Amino acid sequence: MALLVEKYGGTSVKDIGRVMAVAHNARKKIEAGHQIVMVVSAPGGMTDELIDKAKLISSNPSGRELDVLLSTGEQVSIALMAMALESIGVKAISYTAAQLGIVTEGAHNSAQIKKIDTANIKKRLDEGYVVIVAGFQGINHSGCVTTLGRGGSDTSAVAIGAALGAEEVDIYTDVDGIYSADPRIIKGSIKHETLSFEEMLEMAGSGAKVLHTRCVELAAKYNISIHLRSSFDWTEGTKVMEVQDMERTVIKGITATENLAKISVEGGNISLADTIGRISENGTNIDVITHNFEKGRCEISCILKEDYLEGALASIEKGEVSWRKDLSKVSVIGLGVKSRGTAASIFDILTRENIEIEAVSCSEINISCIIPATDSKRAQQVLHRELIED
Amino acid sequence: MALLVEKYGGTSVKDIGRVMAVAHNARKKIEAGHQIVMVVSAPGGMTDELIDKAKLISSNPSGRELDVLLSTGEQVSIALMAMALESIGVKAISYTAAQLGIVTEGAHNSAQIKKIDTANIKKRLDEGYVVIVAGFQGINHSGCVTTLGRGGSDTSAVAIGAALGAEEVDIYTDVDGIYSADPRIIKGSIKHETLSFEEMLEMAGSGAKVLHTRCVELAAKYNISIHLRSSFDWTEGTKVMEVQDMERTVIKGITATENLAKISVEGGNISLADTIGRISENGTNIDVITHNFEKGRCEISCILKEDYLEGALASIEKGEVSWRKDLSKVSVIGLGVKSRGTAASIFDILTRENIEIEAVSCSEINISCIIPATDSKRAQQVLHRELIED
Repeated sequence: MALLVEKYGGTSVKDIGRVMAVAHNARKKIEAGHQIVMVVSAPGGMTDELIDKAKLISSNPSGRELDVLLSTGEQVSIALMAMALESIGVKAISYTAAQLGIVTEGAHNSAQIKKIDTANIKKRLDEGYVVIVAGFQGINHSGCVTTLGRGGSDTSAVAIGAALGAEEVDIYTDVDGIYSADPRIIKGSIKHETLSFEEMLEMAGSGAKVLHTRCVELAAKYNISIHLRSSFDWTEGTKVMEVQDMERTVIKGITATENLAKISVEGGNISLADTIGRISENGTNIDVITHNFEKGRCEISCILKEDYLEGALASIEKGEVSWRKDLSKVSVIGLGVKSRGTAASIFDILTRENIEIEAVSCSEINISCIIPATDSKRAQQVLHRELIED
Repeated sequence: MALLVEKYGGTSVKDIGRVMAVAHNARKKIEAGHQIVMVVSAPGGMTDELIDKAKLISSNPSGRELDVLLSTGEQVSIALMAMALESIGVKAISYTAAQLGIVTEGAHNSAQIKKIDTANIKKRLDEGYVVIVAGFQGINHSGCVTTLGRGGSDTSAVAIGAALGAEEVDIYTDVDGIYSADPRIIKGSIKHETLSFEEMLEMAGSGAKVLHTRCVELAAKYNISIHLRSSFDWTEGTKVMEVQDMERTVIKGITATENLAKISVEGGNISLADTIGRISENGTNIDVITHNFEKGRCEISCILKEDYLEGALASIEKGEVSWRKDLSKVSVIGLGVKSRGTAASIFDILTRENIEIEAVSCSEINISCIIPATDSKRAQQVLHRELIED
C-alpha cells in the first residue's frame, strides 16, 4: 500500500471522457490497496476562456476579482472528478483550497503557498476516500481566494506531497515524458528515464514547457521526485529527482526558445545598471546580457522576447540604439556540458553549419546560443545528432 | 441616502454587455449617494450547462459534489460584476456565500438559509464599496458548499435584505412586472403596481414563474417588500408587499399550469392514505386530490405533472386505475375570489364555453379548474376578459 499524490493537468480533465478515464485508472489503484490524493487543474481551455471574459471588461482587472473568477475552473474539475469516481463505486470527496486551508502569501495571481493543513486529507484518506484537491488556488490571511500563476497546479501538487511526506508526486499530462529535444522537430529524440532537478530547471528555463520552474524548485527543496507521465497511455514517464551517482558527462537535452529579439546600446555616457534597469521596468524579462567596455565607450546588448521589444526600445533614453528581431535561443543542457569542453564543440558545429552566433550564455549545466530564427530547427537537429545521438 | 439590496437574475448578467449595463446603472445610484448590496445569479444558461455536464457522468450525482459544481456559476458572476464596476471607477468587492458566512441547514441542492453574518457587508458598505454577493449558495456547518435549489438567488436576496434590516429588495429580471395573465396569451393583460404576498404566493404556485415561492414566504415573514422589475428598461415594476387596506374584492390574475395528468383509482379495498402515499413516493408532487366514498366503494383522483405519470401508475398496487393526459390548470387569483361568488361565475363561464371541468380546487384567494389542455388558452382569455377587463 502506498500513498499516491497525483496531479492531472487540463488536457487530462478536458472533457467527460478524459475525466472518466482518470477515474477508472484510479479505481484500479484503489482496488490494489493504494491511497490517492488527486490535484486537478481546470478543464483544458477554461482558464483562457475566463481570462478572455475578464479582458472584455477591463484590460487590467483587479487581482482579487480575477482570482475569484479563475478559481472556478479547478472547482468545476474537482466536482466532476468526484462525481466520476462515485459513479463507478469509488468513495471520493472534493476540496477547494479554501476548504482545505491552503494558505498563501504574496500578490494575487502569483501567490506562494505558505502552509497546508493536512488534517482533513489524512482523515479522509483513512476513511477510504480518494481526496480531490483544486490545484492552482489558495486562500490568503484575509480569506480571499488567490491563485499561484499559470502552471500553478504542478506547484500545488508538490506542496501537498511535501506536506504529506510523500516521496514522489505523479504529474499526469498529455506527453509521456521529457525528451532530449522537441520530438516534433528532432526525429531521434530520446525519452529520459531520469533527470536531475538542476537539469530539469535548465530545460524548463530554456524552452521545455512540460514542468513549471517553481514546482521543480519546490520538489528539489523537499527532495520529492516528480514523475512526469501521460494520462493517455499511463506508461512510465520521466522521473525528475535528486541524482547522486549519475554519469556526470552526459548531455540531456537540446531545447529552443523562439521569438526573441536583441537590443544593443552603445555610447560614452551610458551605464549597465541604468540601461538594463530601464529596459526591465514594466516586467520585461531579459534573458542574456552582454557588456563590453573599451576606450571610454560602453556597449550593452541584451536578448528579450519580441513582445517586449517595442516597450523596451521606448524606455531607453541614452546611447545609440540598434536592434534585431527573429532570433532563437538554442540550449544544450546536461550535467556534462562543463566537463568535456562541450562549448567548443557547440561553436565548432554551428560555425561549420554557417550558423551565425549573436550571443552566448552559460551556466553550470547549460550552454545557450542566440542564433537567427531561420537556423533554429537546423541547429537543434545537428546539435542533437552530434552531441546526443552519436 | 438609502441602502439598496438588489438581485440580478441570469438574464441580467448573461453576457458582458448586460453586466456592464448593470454596472453603469449602479454607478448612477452610487453617485446619488446610495449604498448597494448586489446579489447575482449565474450567467443565464450556465447552471443548465453545468447540470448537463454532471448528468453525462452520473444520472444521480452526489448532492455535495453537485453543489461544488453549481456554485461556480454565481462565483463567475460576482467576479465579472466586481471587475465591471471597478472598470468604471466604482469601488466593488465580491463575496462567495462561504466567505460571507451564509450558513445553511438541510439537504444539499435544496438547503435553507439559517444565518447570515452581515459584519463584512456593513464594514464594506461603510467603506464605500458596492458589495456583490453570490446568490443561490451557502455553506453548511461542515464547511461544505450548499445550494438553495432553482430560483434560490431570489431567496438569498430577501434573506440578506432581512439580515440588513432593509425595507425593500429589488429583484431585477427580464420582465418588467407581474401581470394579470400571461401577456403572450392574453393581449389585455394588466401590469400590477402592487400585489399582496398572499396573491403572489398563489400566482407563483399556479404557474406564474417570475418569483419563487420560498422567497415570497420569506419576504412575508420579515415584511420586506419585493420590487420585481426589469434590468433591461429600469422602469418601475410590481411591488409585492403587505397590503392593509387594499380593495379586497379584486381579482388579480389568471394563471395556467400546463402538462398535467389525472389518475383515478376506484375500489372497495383502497384507502386515501395508502394510495396517495404510494403515488407521492419518489418525490411526485400531487396538485389536486378529490376523494369520494360511497356504498363501500372509494374513488380517489389526483392531478400531477405528466412527467410523474408513469412512475405514479407503477406505484399503485390496489384498485381499478384509469388516467388521462393533456390537462391544464387554469387559476383565478385575488383577495376577492371568495367574497363575491366568483366560483359560480367561473363555472358559468367555462360551461357556457363548453369547456369540460375535470376537477376543481380552491383556497382563500385561488380557484383552480383542471380542464383539457386544448381549451387552456381560450379559458384564460375568456376568464381574463370577463373577470378582470370588464
